[in-house]
Amino acid sequence: MSLVVQKFGGSSVADAGRMHRCARRVADARASGKRVVVVVSARGDTTDDLLELAGQVSQSPSKREIDQLLASGEQVSIALMAMTLHGMGYDAVSLTGAQCGIKAESLHTRARITGIDQARLQRELDADRIPVVAGFQAVTDDGEVVTLGRGGSDTTAVALAAALKADVCEIYTDVDGIFTADPRLVPDARRRDCLTYDEILEAASLGTKVMHPRAVELGKKFGVPIRVLHSQQDGKGTLIAAEDPAMESRVVSSVALKNDVGRIMIRDLPNAPGVQSAVFAPVAAAGISVDDIIQDEPAPGRITLTFTVDRADLAEVRPLVEAAAGRLRPPTPPDNGVTVSTGYCKVSAVGAGMRSHSGVASLMFKALADQGIKIENITTSEIGISCILAEYDGPRALRAVHEAFGLSSAQAEDRVAQVVIGAPRAPSGPARAR
Amino acid sequence: MSLVVQKFGGSSVADAGRMHRCARRVADARASGKRVVVVVSARGDTTDDLLELAGQVSQSPSKREIDQLLASGEQVSIALMAMTLHGMGYDAVSLTGAQCGIKAESLHTRARITGIDQARLQRELDADRIPVVAGFQAVTDDGEVVTLGRGGSDTTAVALAAALKADVCEIYTDVDGIFTADPRLVPDARRRDCLTYDEILEAASLGTKVMHPRAVELGKKFGVPIRVLHSQQDGKGTLIAAEDPAMESRVVSSVALKNDVGRIMIRDLPNAPGVQSAVFAPVAAAGISVDDIIQDEPAPGRITLTFTVDRADLAEVRPLVEAAAGRLRPPTPPDNGVTVSTGYCKVSAVGAGMRSHSGVASLMFKALADQGIKIENITTSEIGISCILAEYDGPRALRAVHEAFGLSSAQAEDRVAQVVIGAPRAPSGPARAR
Repeated sequence: MSLVVQKFGGSSVADAGRMHRCARRVADARASGKRVVVVVSARGDTTDDLLELAGQVSQSPSKREIDQLLASGEQVSIALMAMTLHGMGYDAVSLTGAQCGIKAESLHTRARITGIDQARLQRELDADRIPVVAGFQAVTDDGEVVTLGRGGSDTTAVALAAALKADVCEIYTDVDGIFTADPRLVPDARRRDCLTYDEILEAASLGTKVMHPRAVELGKKFGVPIRVLHSQQDGKGTLIAAEDPAMESRVVSSVALKNDVGRIMIRDLPNAPGVQSAVFAPVAAAGISVDDIIQDEPAPGRITLTFTVDRADLAEVRPLVEAAAGRLRPPTPPDNGVTVSTGYCKVSAVGAGMRSHSGVASLMFKALADQGIKIENITTSEIGISCILAEYDGPRALRAVHEAFGLSSAQAEDRVAQVVIGAPRAPSGPARAR
Repeated sequence: MSLVVQKFGGSSVADAGRMHRCARRVADARASGKRVVVVVSARGDTTDDLLELAGQVSQSPSKREIDQLLASGEQVSIALMAMTLHGMGYDAVSLTGAQCGIKAESLHTRARITGIDQARLQRELDADRIPVVAGFQAVTDDGEVVTLGRGGSDTTAVALAAALKADVCEIYTDVDGIFTADPRLVPDARRRDCLTYDEILEAASLGTKVMHPRAVELGKKFGVPIRVLHSQQDGKGTLIAAEDPAMESRVVSSVALKNDVGRIMIRDLPNAPGVQSAVFAPVAAAGISVDDIIQDEPAPGRITLTFTVDRADLAEVRPLVEAAAGRLRPPTPPDNGVTVSTGYCKVSAVGAGMRSHSGVASLMFKALADQGIKIENITTSEIGISCILAEYDGPRALRAVHEAFGLSSAQAEDRVAQVVIGAPRAPSGPARAR
């Protein structure tokens, strides 16, 4: 019997009416003969409300207690969703992360799933019940509650789909699917029927908020097809799957804007083996994602490392890199040789076809130049190009790039292909550190 | 080193300011060299709010899911209380019922604690941390979350105090202690410094809402002294302990009013061995408390059983007793011989000294007669007398009885003793079934 994992996000279950419409999706899947595992997030603004409560009692609440606090949000959702399904005549059973056997490492607020003890889950499925599982949360070997950080509920859903060998993992959100660009910023953006894991990974890490890269990476690793759908409206959504080798890839499938980019520059490091590792290992150990690493050598044997992080992570990253830099060379007054700056955004173009087409980068640079927009930094990957810009240029840059790659019209790809033929291929940039 | 369990009720931790004042109680105990285990309830109206959410998605939510839902309330409280204590410089660690090893039977919404696996708790205490434990919730051997029903948080606190052999279990509430009567109904009611477990048991089961009888019973069983205190104001509160044989007991220590009394009358049962058990065993199995059982024999060999339950339990009790009656004799149209009625209250007088004084009952009956109040039913126990009245007579009856026993003035007991000497002792009524 086929099995589907259906994940409903916070806004999709924010009230009884919306929750009921989500439960109808479950009922439809059951009616078509499928077994269903449901994953839900905390309802609506619950997580923000809980964090505000924490802020009222503590200026720097402990991460362990934040996890204990936030996990209550999904616990409310699973109970209410199970009750909703009961009311529709289905035998459902809510399971916290711990009850569902979702095991994780002991890293509070940012844990990774280490495995799923399926005994309970299988018992419920064998009894023909619908497990309603709390997303975002897991349990350590010591019985401590941990949360999985941003995108945690998507990750829970895909991990369950992988463990149970589900046919598909459906991610229900408040959008119709994945678009060529954010429709709020680019009015003529169009929904994509299908994208590859790699395209989403590139787009997601660069600011498309529909799916978190962790969940997509997991889907890619285990070959779980993921479909992004609107929870309250019917539609085909967007299927995320492996690249189909029989089909021609699109050169550029979407463009993305990421705001709140913080930049850190560390000057005057010795160019010796292990320097980069000494700087980034403590950042990685803190579970913080780093992007757009660029290395310069302004003077012989002395290098500058520049990279970006989410602005929210700057306060945590700064002392880590200052300490690392201090161990690598004498402190450099007045700022320890570490410069932190904000006010940046990142505009990116993504497409699996970039592997086989050249000239994409130069088309993007021309679109920005025509708008008089200054590029602060450039990074590229196999299937993506990103430009760091001043934050106030972001929306205008996004529209210009979307237009330049012809994403607004159905003939987009042909036109882009014609434009870029024969143009020089942009050099491959540094890999994303994560 | 001495150890104290401090339990803070829902209204005591309803906001950050009140929670901070509770945390000051913990700090004071630590400052005087004591180890502390904290127990907290769900904040303010959280439980009602969660039940309202459940009502929005389901007309008859499953008890298992209600437990899963409600347990989130204390989880929020423990995390916030631990954060508050951290902010004051104390090393605290929040523990859910499951994490604290509080084991219970698998009876949803009304489970009883079967034991406490102290390993985790001892580890935290040995590390000189303050465990902040979720009241009201426990875990079954299968890892299911259960709640303990009314008074559950008090029960958690006393059970922990018993298991840890604490010197005292402090119950912090929004009143100064336990009074001779509810001060909202009887303006000249006075705080008692000390009461016996039995007096509280009698008063609590009869409507004094300060302490739940389950928790007091547990305290009595394990000899845990319990002190009821105001969480936001200083004061001595009321100590609940075993009777001091060296001291003269008060004849009447308090009077109580319980509203929302529902009455069930089952007519025309055969007077055969096992009839009572056949009626009440299913009610007890459902975990419902029954009070004031009275048996009549209006015709030879045919008996009538009358008893009271909380009005909220009527809907659940009725089909149970109808089924039981149907098994004992042919159904009696039109109502199966079962009459359910509401609109009653119970006014009670309690005092350990009743054991050795007579005439208390007749004084109470006279006080009610002087007010022209009709008594529907009477039950007595070793240390208490209760009269079932029309609900609208309750407050007036309470004040009359409080006055009659002289509880408003310091000379109360002597005067009562004089009045009752030589008066006939009321017959002992049926024991309370529980």
